[in-house]
Amino acid sequence: MAKSMTTRADDYAQWYNDLVLKSGLAEYSAVRGCMNIKPYGFAIWEGMKDVLDRRFKETGHVNASFPLLIPKSFFSREADHVEGFAKECAVVTHYRLKNDPEGGIVVDPDAKLEEEMIIRPTSETLMWDAYKGWIQSYRDLPLLINQWANVMRWEMRTRLFLRTAEFHWQEGHTAHATSAEAMAEARKMLDVYAEFMEGTMAVPVIRGIKTETERFAGAVETFTVEGLMQDGKALQMGTSHFLGQNFAKAFDVTFLDKEGKRDLVWGTSWGVSTRMMGALIMVHSDDEGLVLPPKLAPTQVVLVPIMKGKDSAGPLLEKLEGIASALRAKGLRVKVDDDDTKRPGWKFAEYELRGVPVRLAMGGRDLENGTIELARRDLRTKETVPADGIVDTVVGLMDTIQDSLFQKALDYRNSHIHRADNWADFEAALDKGGFVFAHWDGTAKTENEIKTKTKATIRCLPLEGQGMETEESGACILTGNPSARRVLFARAY
Amino acid sequence: MAKSMTTRADDYAQWYNDLVLKSGLAEYSAVRGCMNIKPYGFAIWEGMKDVLDRRFKETGHVNASFPLLIPKSFFSREADHVEGFAKECAVVTHYRLKNDPEGGIVVDPDAKLEEEMIIRPTSETLMWDAYKGWIQSYRDLPLLINQWANVMRWEMRTRLFLRTAEFHWQEGHTAHATSAEAMAEARKMLDVYAEFMEGTMAVPVIRGIKTETERFAGAVETFTVEGLMQDGKALQMGTSHFLGQNFAKAFDVTFLDKEGKRDLVWGTSWGVSTRMMGALIMVHSDDEGLVLPPKLAPTQVVLVPIMKGKDSAGPLLEKLEGIASALRAKGLRVKVDDDDTKRPGWKFAEYELRGVPVRLAMGGRDLENGTIELARRDLRTKETVPADGIVDTVVGLMDTIQDSLFQKALDYRNSHIHRADNWADFEAALDKGGFVFAHWDGTAKTENEIKTKTKATIRCLPLEGQGMETEESGACILTGNPSARRVLFARAY
Repeated sequence: MAKSMTTRADDYAQWYNDLVLKSGLAEYSAVRGCMNIKPYGFAIWEGMKDVLDRRFKETGHVNASFPLLIPKSFFSREADHVEGFAKECAVVTHYRLKNDPEGGIVVDPDAKLEEEMIIRPTSETLMWDAYKGWIQSYRDLPLLINQWANVMRWEMRTRLFLRTAEFHWQEGHTAHATSAEAMAEARKMLDVYAEFMEGTMAVPVIRGIKTETERFAGAVETFTVEGLMQDGKALQMGTSHFLGQNFAKAFDVTFLDKEGKRDLVWGTSWGVSTRMMGALIMVHSDDEGLVLPPKLAPTQVVLVPIMKGKDSAGPLLEKLEGIASALRAKGLRVKVDDDDTKRPGWKFAEYELRGVPVRLAMGGRDLENGTIELARRDLRTKETVPADGIVDTVVGLMDTIQDSLFQKALDYRNSHIHRADNWADFEAALDKGGFVFAHWDGTAKTENEIKTKTKATIRCLPLEGQGMETEESGACILTGNPSARRVLFARAY
Repeated sequence: MAKSMTTRADDYAQWYNDLVLKSGLAEYSAVRGCMNIKPYGFAIWEGMKDVLDRRFKETGHVNASFPLLIPKSFFSREADHVEGFAKECAVVTHYRLKNDPEGGIVVDPDAKLEEEMIIRPTSETLMWDAYKGWIQSYRDLPLLINQWANVMRWEMRTRLFLRTAEFHWQEGHTAHATSAEAMAEARKMLDVYAEFMEGTMAVPVIRGIKTETERFAGAVETFTVEGLMQDGKALQMGTSHFLGQNFAKAFDVTFLDKEGKRDLVWGTSWGVSTRMMGALIMVHSDDEGLVLPPKLAPTQVVLVPIMKGKDSAGPLLEKLEGIASALRAKGLRVKVDDDDTKRPGWKFAEYELRGVPVRLAMGGRDLENGTIELARRDLRTKETVPADGIVDTVVGLMDTIQDSLFQKALDYRNSHIHRADNWADFEAALDKGGFVFAHWDGTAKTENEIKTKTKATIRCLPLEGQGMETEESGACILTGNPSARRVLFARAY
């Protein structure tokens, strides 16, 4: 199967699309720009959700649910917010169909809504409207709410997982008594995201601040985590926003402080989406198929018996089931593939395509010799090892593979952060792929001009502690005007 | 707080609404007919989802995700299906807003969709369209897919959880090679629902078959589980449908069988929703607030220190934290409420309102005497018991309370199944509240006439093995025409 797939070198975009389809993660549905997420893809997403949801709860957040539809008047309450989303909104105008006297079904013109509704592209407006009723005094703060939801942004050009009209995400929306506390929350959730991406997805990220141009519509400050794909393009993997008092103002959300003084509440919002699936696929996979980090692989170990006729199957399967049980007892997700209608070679290719981290295979001779074949998906190595002790070996391999994938991605990422101090070097660096760390004069005009000339955008101003200077005077690579720090450019998804 | 609540005897509907609001489960949002599910309510729903999702997976199902929007032409493909849902559809007609030159934001008339889209009221059409691509041969069957999703039905009269325009649910959609296998699946999932409702929600249900009038739009047979609320009204708590080949025909889904013959696939669908929250509340709760079965209570045990000034707090809290840790180690969900800004009496009322199954309270004298006060929410009893052994006592109480709630609800339900053999008895029995088991002549005309006269509907034809005869000749209570069996009537939500 994998043979017919486009390689990364041939056409990276096509490779990605083929891989998503062939490995059974997702496909386009009949609805323009929307996906069917297939069971295998959804199982990976469920794994991500589980880990994140646990972290959100450990950090004091609770889940809740708010409506899908937003009345147009609500949506318009925060001026920057509506400006940012108005151009990509699905609008509900009617609430009934009826039979057409001339045949077929039509929208009933008598069932027109008095006020149109928008399918939520994000839920700040509805949640802040609710918060007005939930928050009276400092005792009600902080309010730390998360919602797992589907949202819709009517994108014209879509790509599976990376950009779809409807997508799944979580959106945290918190309210605080002070600016400092809200800012600390926005930063904390950025760290939760970064730790998840690095620790669970094995995808290294750079934490930074967005420029005003790239800021979320309605935010005072937007923090971002940026990953680097194997084609040298950056991907924004999640954002966390300090909203100041913008939504509190728009929805009149105030609280009585300890001194009995009434004040506006401070807010944050933060979200990650099924877009992370795109990053997971693009960072690790190869020309043979998916490569999944063990922590997110729906099946971590597959055991394949090499049967010659059904006669020898009994003891072999018994042995493999024994190993599988022992692995499951250690908490691993394990499958024994005893389907005798498929050849071992077909199965090997299938599990490579699907990115199962470890494959164990055993034939009659192995059974006699007390050996087993162990294959690692990430390195595509295989070796015959003693069957005794295989359980501990495989359990240990889970961490080894997880770490190795992260290290490989980190090495690639680190070797693709270029510095450029003049325009020629800047363009050359961009063409090599990866991030370019360069001086910029701080104006939106220059930012836009660079984007027009090169298709590169400012991904972020990296935060401290990541080995990139946050203060350094220099000259803008485009205008030569003074610059107080370097920023991180890249071509991006 | 509980004092100001309407009682069940005063006004059951108002009691229910007050309770949902005051206990912090949910509220109406600013969007007509839609809810904000608040964190406490959502935590209960998450508990339900966890148990059901595990059961679905244990019975071989996998989760996937399909789009929110359905093109109108798809929706119309199955004639009965569109007929059943057309009158309550939210319709998306445009995909952009724009600034009104006269101020404000308006729908952009240039962004009209070529084909209108419906917000899914259920996903048979989209999923069967996908299945056409997923199913080629008998090897691809059975296909056992579930989706957790939000759906929308534009209801005119809404009630929190029981009937809202948008609601959360799961919808299983399976495809099979034979009619018998599909029928067995539909029945199996009905049993999974019934076991969940009785075993986890502590709500007894009657399993039955819907009449043709009440059948799901597009199904050949609809199975139902029916509960009885404390006001004597029935509630349909979940349904499972045998779809025959209806959707396979509409979407041309065929497979090659083992003999190489092409045939249409057989289907089922089955769903339960946030409506179950309504049943959970209405079956167990009382005039003081919620009563939650331990298996679904977000907090199963609350520990309240009775502190006189801060001095004595140290040893008391230490003791309670020790008990809490021991309970948590046994897998219980436990909270120690050490908030010293609130009086114990206020806390007691609050946790009664919220339905926490067990409350433990300890004061300075208890600490000296080695005693603790143990209160059961379901019976509203309290007693002072030795603090030694309290952990085992409370662990044991979880099952005791769970069983006791079920038994109480079962006794109520069983004492509210009346038999009636003539019209006068039938009307009198309906007025007593509960189910009436009576003969019906099998026609939709009579069914409708009974509904018009009494507001009672046929809830189901009970399945075998529930102590209700499934065959017994008699005379219809309305028309006197011959009847082959009794059916179950009730006024219902």
